[in-house]
Amino acid sequence: MTRTLTVSTKAREQMVDVTRLVQDAVDESGLDAGLVFCFVPHTTAAITINENADPDVTRDILHKLNKEIPREDGYHHSEGNSDAHVKSSLIGVSQQVMFENGRLLLGRWQALYFCEFDGPRRRQLIVRVQSLA
Amino acid sequence: MTRTLTVSTKAREQMVDVTRLVQDAVDESGLDAGLVFCFVPHTTAAITINENADPDVTRDILHKLNKEIPREDGYHHSEGNSDAHVKSSLIGVSQQVMFENGRLLLGRWQALYFCEFDGPRRRQLIVRVQSLA
Amino acid sequence: MTRTLTVSTKAREQMVDVTRLVQDAVDESGLDAGLVFCFVPHTTAAITINENADPDVTRDILHKLNKEIPREDGYHHSEGNSDAHVKSSLIGVSQQVMFENGRLLLGRWQALYFCEFDGPRRRQLIVRVQSLA
Repeated sequence: MTRTLTVSTKAREQMVDVTRLVQDAVDESGLDAGLVFCFVPHTTAAITINENADPDVTRDILHKLNKEIPREDGYHHSEGNSDAHVKSSLIGVSQQVMFENGRLLLGRWQALYFCEFDGPRRRQLIVRVQSLA
Repeated sequence: MTRTLTVSTKAREQMVDVTRLVQDAVDESGLDAGLVFCFVPHTTAAITINENADPDVTRDILHKLNKEIPREDGYHHSEGNSDAHVKSSLIGVSQQVMFENGRLLLGRWQALYFCEFDGPRRRQLIVRVQSLA
Repeated sequence: MTRTLTVSTKAREQMVDVTRLVQDAVDESGLDAGLVFCFVPHTTAAITINENADPDVTRDILHKLNKEIPREDGYHHSEGNSDAHVKSSLIGVSQQVMFENGRLLLGRWQALYFCEFDGPRRRQLIVRVQSLA
């Protein structure tokens, strides 16, 4: 089962918790156990897994990425968003998570985050729910 | 179906568009829908997904990686290519892409890039085409 | 087949070779060919693939990560380990490796490394061995 979800971002850089959206796709599939593959079909965004308990963690991750990868840095690309392309390749555009008994097998503090690096925009997140082979 | 493809790189650092090679493997499999798993069996290379419209984007990604991760930086490894090992772990040695109706499900601006960080060399890219579970 | 392995780390930052542990899980599965999915259920650790021939390579990777991502850097998160969260998202919490004839299909110099960024701790590594679809 493949679903294309919509994620509307509100800022140039933002980490949006999409765990609930991905769990909803697993629920909808009716499958008990398997793997969920999440894919971002954009080149200035990404997806990662990190802590959702303290919102300062995602604040700090974006702070550090922006400090080390500022918007201007000797880039040639005329759109002026090369920093976002670099961040996308460093974080990566896909994540895979197992599920059992219909629940995502994430660690206690883990959440799935859609990473916006050149927003705000209306973005897509493609989710494929696969049963165990 | 598993294929080992050859990628000949021309410079120490280079991003080589391998989308066509991977699509060819999907075509050869004759499968309609599934996942392609791409794996780089090297420790000074990587694979990423990023923009293929403006060649300045890959130029800017390599520029930024080289600026932040120069060849000399207090490293101990005697081969003198520790920068390439660091880049390999940051970008990653595998990517996974879905396909439907025999076509890779990449976003409009996305391409698969083999990333050379210690070339020029003759490299391998292992591609496994899997049908839907 | 899914196994939860234990990795006991000895330092704040450490790369632990877990290739043998993952190969053992493949052996235990009795499967001939497929994919092994390795997942770290933590937000201050990661998993990567890199060289195991010269121990200076992992030393150099940790040296460079610590140099660029020091423990203090304008972070807000009160636990004081935001550097570890940043490293976790940059390296990533999962890896996937193929196997054939019961052997992991790693390159000649490649090994799987559990990456500790906020140890020492007793950590988990979840390994799912899947047969070919």
